[in-house]
Amino acid sequence: MFKELESAAKDHSVALADVLSNLKFDNDGLVAAVAQEAHSKEVLMVGWMDRTAIERTLSEGYACYWSRSRQTYWRKGETSGHLQALVELRLDCDGDAILLLVEQTGPACHTNRPTCFYLTVEGESVRVTTESQ
Amino acid sequence: MFKELESAAKDHSVALADVLSNLKFDNDGLVAAVAQEAHSKEVLMVGWMDRTAIERTLSEGYACYWSRSRQTYWRKGETSGHLQALVELRLDCDGDAILLLVEQTGPACHTNRPTCFYLTVEGESVRVTTESQ
Repeated sequence: MFKELESAAKDHSVALADVLSNLKFDNDGLVAAVAQEAHSKEVLMVGWMDRTAIERTLSEGYACYWSRSRQTYWRKGETSGHLQALVELRLDCDGDAILLLVEQTGPACHTNRPTCFYLTVEGESVRVTTESQ
Repeated sequence: MFKELESAAKDHSVALADVLSNLKFDNDGLVAAVAQEAHSKEVLMVGWMDRTAIERTLSEGYACYWSRSRQTYWRKGETSGHLQALVELRLDCDGDAILLLVEQTGPACHTNRPTCFYLTVEGESVRVTTESQ
């Protein structure tokens, strides 16, 4: 499926159900899901999804991940209110990663920073480069 | 280490070696690495890195991943010439994902598309939304 799509022309389309059945989940049944803010283009976080999490994200319109630490589904922001409204969901060439374009309410990170990627390597140091909101 | 950094003020810094020693690698010894084009902000791909791949990326200045399919290190573009020059490397709040800001030479995807995320969900279909270059 993904191999065939490699040489497909732009605008070629296939059934979503077939694509989901051919995703390459890892040994834990998961794919990496990158959340990117649809307007600022900032990369917010990386979460994990199984097929159910992908289907919930698409049907509910809000990012729903699988929490590897808590072993449960988790609609991002369900307790904090910092929801991620889905704008677009994309899949990569080999079907083992997902890109979510989202409209993020409030900070994406549980530390109240706008992004989870707030630690920047600078030479032999790592610096906190984003303030809590 | 990462727990302590959660409440650290902006510009607080720690030693890179300590951070690398505390990364949360998965059962295969890997973390997800998202490559984002530094200027266009387009998300190009998701790869995988172990500690050696991270250290090579930092010391060589070009993205070097661990290929899960080929079980070997792989400097992105080493055969195609489509290198990813490292602009900045960031780590996420819980130390299990990496964001690479890169200057991408040529298309990032092996299908000669600018990004690996060229499959877009539209209702019950998935459409090829990016042309090969």
